[in-house]
Amino acid sequence: MGLGKRIDFGDAKYAGVDVPFSCSIQDSLESALLCGFDFIMSPLVHPRYRRPAPSALPRGTFQPPFTRSDLLLTSAQWSGQVVGKVSSWIDCDSASPALRRDSQAALVQELGWAAHLSLQAVVLPPPPQHAANYARILNHTLGGLATMSMWVRIPAAAAPAPAPSGGGDNGGGGHAGTSTACVDPWELWNQLRFLCHHHPRLAVVLELGADLPAEDNLHRWRGEPLKAVLVPTSVFTTNKRGYPTLSKRHQDFLSDCFRRGVQVVLSGNAQHAPPPEAAPSGGAAARGLDGAVAAVAAAVAPLQANPLRVYWEYLSYIFRKIEATSEQEVLEMGYRDFLQSPLQPLQDNLESQTYETFERDGTKYSTYEEAVYRCLLDRVPQEEAESRTTVLMVVGAGRGPLVAASLRASVRAKRQIRVFAVEKNPNAVVTLQNRLVADGWQGTVTIVPADMREWQAPEQADILVSELLGSFGDNELSPECLDGAQRFLRPDGVSIPQAYTSYLQPITSHKLWNDVRAHDDIEHFETPYVVKLFKFHPLAPTQEVFTFEHPNRDHCIDNTRSACLRFDCTTAGGAVCHGFAGYFDAQLYEDVHLSIHPPTHTPNMFSWFPIYFPLRLPFHLPQGARMEVHMWRCEGQHKVWYEWAVTEPLTTCIHNPGGRSYYVGL
Amino acid sequence: MGLGKRIDFGDAKYAGVDVPFSCSIQDSLESALLCGFDFIMSPLVHPRYRRPAPSALPRGTFQPPFTRSDLLLTSAQWSGQVVGKVSSWIDCDSASPALRRDSQAALVQELGWAAHLSLQAVVLPPPPQHAANYARILNHTLGGLATMSMWVRIPAAAAPAPAPSGGGDNGGGGHAGTSTACVDPWELWNQLRFLCHHHPRLAVVLELGADLPAEDNLHRWRGEPLKAVLVPTSVFTTNKRGYPTLSKRHQDFLSDCFRRGVQVVLSGNAQHAPPPEAAPSGGAAARGLDGAVAAVAAAVAPLQANPLRVYWEYLSYIFRKIEATSEQEVLEMGYRDFLQSPLQPLQDNLESQTYETFERDGTKYSTYEEAVYRCLLDRVPQEEAESRTTVLMVVGAGRGPLVAASLRASVRAKRQIRVFAVEKNPNAVVTLQNRLVADGWQGTVTIVPADMREWQAPEQADILVSELLGSFGDNELSPECLDGAQRFLRPDGVSIPQAYTSYLQPITSHKLWNDVRAHDDIEHFETPYVVKLFKFHPLAPTQEVFTFEHPNRDHCIDNTRSACLRFDCTTAGGAVCHGFAGYFDAQLYEDVHLSIHPPTHTPNMFSWFPIYFPLRLPFHLPQGARMEVHMWRCEGQHKVWYEWAVTEPLTTCIHNPGGRSYYVGL
Repeated sequence: MGLGKRIDFGDAKYAGVDVPFSCSIQDSLESALLCGFDFIMSPLVHPRYRRPAPSALPRGTFQPPFTRSDLLLTSAQWSGQVVGKVSSWIDCDSASPALRRDSQAALVQELGWAAHLSLQAVVLPPPPQHAANYARILNHTLGGLATMSMWVRIPAAAAPAPAPSGGGDNGGGGHAGTSTACVDPWELWNQLRFLCHHHPRLAVVLELGADLPAEDNLHRWRGEPLKAVLVPTSVFTTNKRGYPTLSKRHQDFLSDCFRRGVQVVLSGNAQHAPPPEAAPSGGAAARGLDGAVAAVAAAVAPLQANPLRVYWEYLSYIFRKIEATSEQEVLEMGYRDFLQSPLQPLQDNLESQTYETFERDGTKYSTYEEAVYRCLLDRVPQEEAESRTTVLMVVGAGRGPLVAASLRASVRAKRQIRVFAVEKNPNAVVTLQNRLVADGWQGTVTIVPADMREWQAPEQADILVSELLGSFGDNELSPECLDGAQRFLRPDGVSIPQAYTSYLQPITSHKLWNDVRAHDDIEHFETPYVVKLFKFHPLAPTQEVFTFEHPNRDHCIDNTRSACLRFDCTTAGGAVCHGFAGYFDAQLYEDVHLSIHPPTHTPNMFSWFPIYFPLRLPFHLPQGARMEVHMWRCEGQHKVWYEWAVTEPLTTCIHNPGGRSYYVGL
Repeated sequence: MGLGKRIDFGDAKYAGVDVPFSCSIQDSLESALLCGFDFIMSPLVHPRYRRPAPSALPRGTFQPPFTRSDLLLTSAQWSGQVVGKVSSWIDCDSASPALRRDSQAALVQELGWAAHLSLQAVVLPPPPQHAANYARILNHTLGGLATMSMWVRIPAAAAPAPAPSGGGDNGGGGHAGTSTACVDPWELWNQLRFLCHHHPRLAVVLELGADLPAEDNLHRWRGEPLKAVLVPTSVFTTNKRGYPTLSKRHQDFLSDCFRRGVQVVLSGNAQHAPPPEAAPSGGAAARGLDGAVAAVAAAVAPLQANPLRVYWEYLSYIFRKIEATSEQEVLEMGYRDFLQSPLQPLQDNLESQTYETFERDGTKYSTYEEAVYRCLLDRVPQEEAESRTTVLMVVGAGRGPLVAASLRASVRAKRQIRVFAVEKNPNAVVTLQNRLVADGWQGTVTIVPADMREWQAPEQADILVSELLGSFGDNELSPECLDGAQRFLRPDGVSIPQAYTSYLQPITSHKLWNDVRAHDDIEHFETPYVVKLFKFHPLAPTQEVFTFEHPNRDHCIDNTRSACLRFDCTTAGGAVCHGFAGYFDAQLYEDVHLSIHPPTHTPNMFSWFPIYFPLRLPFHLPQGARMEVHMWRCEGQHKVWYEWAVTEPLTTCIHNPGGRSYYVGL
């Protein structure tokens, strides 16, 4: 039924519950569903059934079925409502050869059984400190999986997991506690993931304890394939009415997980029994359940007999109280972590639809309007307002939004302007020509169907207005275009934008890297992508990369650049680097900026997503490591491209040599 | 003309000489050739011609030719007798933007010119400590090279290179001295090489100083693409007759280089002028030049006017005095660093030629003979020598060498034997049947055309003799075959071999890794190769991996294995690991061993080369690092394979999961 009605958090609305290996899995499932949960996490084999490997038995030894029949549930139930749990006695890296042998055989058997049931996911015990053999078996199995995911159980904190709370199959927690104490559990995950070569179906279920680790330690998981969070009943505290409740930090972390589509799974036995006088519906109302839900709650009153119901209600409360998603977030949802190739505005003509999308960004154009407005006021004193006409050239006018913004600025500033709208795309020129009539631009606006780098202007401009910036500032050839257009800018003329700077930071993003890897070639690893970063974690504050200023009156203009950036990665504990996120901040005019650089991001502007520069191989960044990154902006006769490499803490190859995989055509 | 007549060191016989940018390159070349050298190393452009980048010049600026004409020499001379030298003022990573810009343009220009001349190689200045931009330009150029190699000049020791000794173009040495002091020059090379992604045409010319670094520091270069050694005249000392001579360590290092096909290039001005009374031919004779060469030397006496002649003579003397290559080394020369796929003796039938090669290994069969001899003596006391016949089964008899060895052992031991020769290859059986008659085996030998795992033996054997070992011991399925054959071994019977152990060690081997990489797929990186290791450097002593004993009377035989090996890499300075070398040591009987494990290698045995397990990506091993390696021997229903991974100092993926790229069919 879901934790609430909102659908903007994807699968996160479906909560699960960890159940013991009971006599009847049907009853377990039915009871969990009635209680409100949407799936159960159930052992695949009785957790105490430690069986010898078949190879260790004399030939012909009778072997009973190792677990119960798949006929107990329908295929739809197995695949939609059950997550399997691998036996926690399994220790493939045990010092005991017999336990190793039996563990390997049992692990292969249980994973095979889970795949046979077409489960969506199977939960695996936490890796011990040395887990190479464990990794080998997972890696092998991953190679043959069609759809099933593996969720490796990782304790959120290094401290020993809480003692098993009476559940029959909680041995896994104890196991993790003994063998991983003092080792950052993230490191265990990280080694397993590297050994399995970052397999896209190897994921994490994070097991919360009563104490949560430091904030940025938790945040590392934002860039990792975190699929679910395991919340033991033992981490709940009791409020004064006898109900289970979570600490503020737990609540915040859970909310953050929900927002990122991470599911929650409750584990352990009920440890709270609210007094009977606190009627369920009353309890619900007390926490702000709305009327409709309270009514539903009352209708299912008999089912409140399930002692886990109070926990489900609390989880549902957390889920529902998260603030509504903003309209912009809803619009962007479909673009989250979706890799797009950057535009090639010079080579290709944009489509009508692309113009439409960009034109919708009201913030962007009102900021341009403000920049033109201020510039007009600065250039033309009040006393010349009537007598002097400012010549404004919009280079790359598209379907006219900057023309319109400039005209609005002129009206507001009470300054006369004459506008040349230069546009090379013949299709956009059609729109401009129609707007000339429809919007009454005649007499003020001249439409010029030409490439700004070649057009012979009939007069010189006071102001050159352009919107040629890409996500990384200069990556859509704004420098080259404006250098070409500044021929017809007066010596005291102004370019809007006046300058722009790109920024970079290293990030963890398992998803983006794997999406690049899926193409299975080098080219895609040497291409930057425009992407709405979502499941990612920045590893250090951004740093400036390249700056361009316009007009550029240098004797010989050189738009190549190189930068050597040093990042001090402050994340508590180690992290993994999958590449770099890039942004820009543009100074349109004086202190009027357009920015997608996180610290100064222009509010409500959606025209640009960040850029992502991948690395061919992710690398491990030990705690406190310094990273040294090189970025180059290179130029050939017909193209511009970036190259990048890391030289600390290790040296990678230089990506995209000579622009072999990615370039922007001039 | 070459340093000597021997041709077993390949190109090493051709020595070069560093020449200044003289007025006439023809004269320089002619003089060098007359002096004995085979090529010159010449600046491509006048070393003091620091020119501004064309992009920094106003348009239309007249630019003179940047260097002399290519018509001065023939194409054959340029490509066969000239190695180009890039200007040493070039510093692409300079803090000065102007110098960076000019350097980049000049480097691209000079490399382009060298490629235009079809030079075999171009010598590059030593990389400064931060050389990312330098690497970027090399990397880009490497991508477009057809045949030319780049030799990066690397000082052998961290100390500043000797001051330029009057040569006009020796600025490079000073440059290296100032910017690389205290940094291990190997690290500079290593970073450059990683940035250029281990390009096969990026190589090293090592510049010797008066002081050589520690022995194992020098030995690191054995696994690197070392193409030439630069010997400045300043490192020569003077003997009591006034002739130049080198220290013992320099001599040894040069000899080692010659043996590995590394060329020598003399640099600097003559600093030794032997007194006229010591006539040239006398000087040569004093150092043991043979009569013929002395005669030649006398014939060219007028040319001795060249003051570098005494150095050439000394180099020639070092070259010629290296001990003769052994017959076995000559035989193996063609196999050096040549990757071969291991045999699949069960799946494929060996060819006649393969049998012939193996049968030539007299040492191997006399060792087998000794093992059988000792075993016969141990099993049959003198008093039963006449009355008791030992049943000996040769499983995998091939064309009969082990049958013959066993018969010789029986004669020597004066013990009666009856031999069953079991062979599954029907073609080899033809040879056996012919030998039965030709070698008089009738009555003693029974030929059994069958697979030893299926044959129903008519009686039980006392001794099972086999030669099923691969380079890594168990890698040609000896364990599986012998387990299948031991059914017909008496309970007190003996297997020859009784046991075998594999060994592993991490190595540097740029060549092998690049040859694997040339296939451009993952499969080849997940395959072990049989290879006569030559240009390699072991990074730590070997460690035991897997041991098998025969017969194996275990209740349930398990031939899977796993090993976690920890290597303490003791190389002075850092090193790079390209994978692992594997060996075996087999106990044939008691203390009779066959071994290719370096510390115990059976002398003069050539049947097995080591095995090489590659890594998908080489990694840098800092000085004193510990390495942790996992090896698995895995078994499926129809195949056996290895998997391997590194978990310290970094974690690699597990290679060959599930035997996807390489396996041996059962």
